[in-house]
Amino acid sequence: MKQPINLADKLGAFSEHWSPKIVGSFNGHDLLVVKLKGEFVWHSHPDTDDFFQVLKGRLRIEMRDGDVELGPGEIYVVPKGVEHRPVAEEEVEALLIEPEGTPNTGDPETAVVKERI
Amino acid sequence: MKQPINLADKLGAFSEHWSPKIVGSFNGHDLLVVKLKGEFVWHSHPDTDDFFQVLKGRLRIEMRDGDVELGPGEIYVVPKGVEHRPVAEEEVEALLIEPEGTPNTGDPETAVVKERI
Repeated sequence: MKQPINLADKLGAFSEHWSPKIVGSFNGHDLLVVKLKGEFVWHSHPDTDDFFQVLKGRLRIEMRDGDVELGPGEIYVVPKGVEHRPVAEEEVEALLIEPEGTPNTGDPETAVVKERI
Repeated sequence: MKQPINLADKLGAFSEHWSPKIVGSFNGHDLLVVKLKGEFVWHSHPDTDDFFQVLKGRLRIEMRDGDVELGPGEIYVVPKGVEHRPVAEEEVEALLIEPEGTPNTGDPETAVVKERI
């Protein structure tokens, strides 16, 4: 019997915020789980759309021309090149999908190293 | 205020099985929701991995070298070229991610036309 990727189990394995963990691969992309709390930096990804699926909590993604709010079971894709800032008033758990090697801040200089769990 | 993609709302808009509906786009891929019940055909996708995330119910994905079972909040990626057959004893709701234009049966001759909802 093969094992699926259980997102809750993966999210139970760490506690730090803004540090996405790689849990799988799909067509040259990483599947990542992340915990978010507080305000991230304004940034954009010039070469990729940015996929967010909220699993727990409520996430606001601020953009220059309007915000979006996501609860559990909701998805938003920030188009490539669009400046955005994720803000989580309370802790949020989310699934992200990014091309392998994408810097989380949009800038390799300031990006975290993503561990595989 | 921008609107997120609410998967439950999208799934409430149709009832037929094995007919994925396009609900969004991400890096040249379609995001799709689907209802599954019964046995699908054995098939493979020579050029793409096949992403399944179960939202409701339990899905078995049979493969020639072993099966996987997924419940809500679980993901499995069938690697490209790997023959598989999804089986849902009871109705399953799932999120799929596929390159735009991917035939659901692996064969354009037998594939359903995917409507955007």
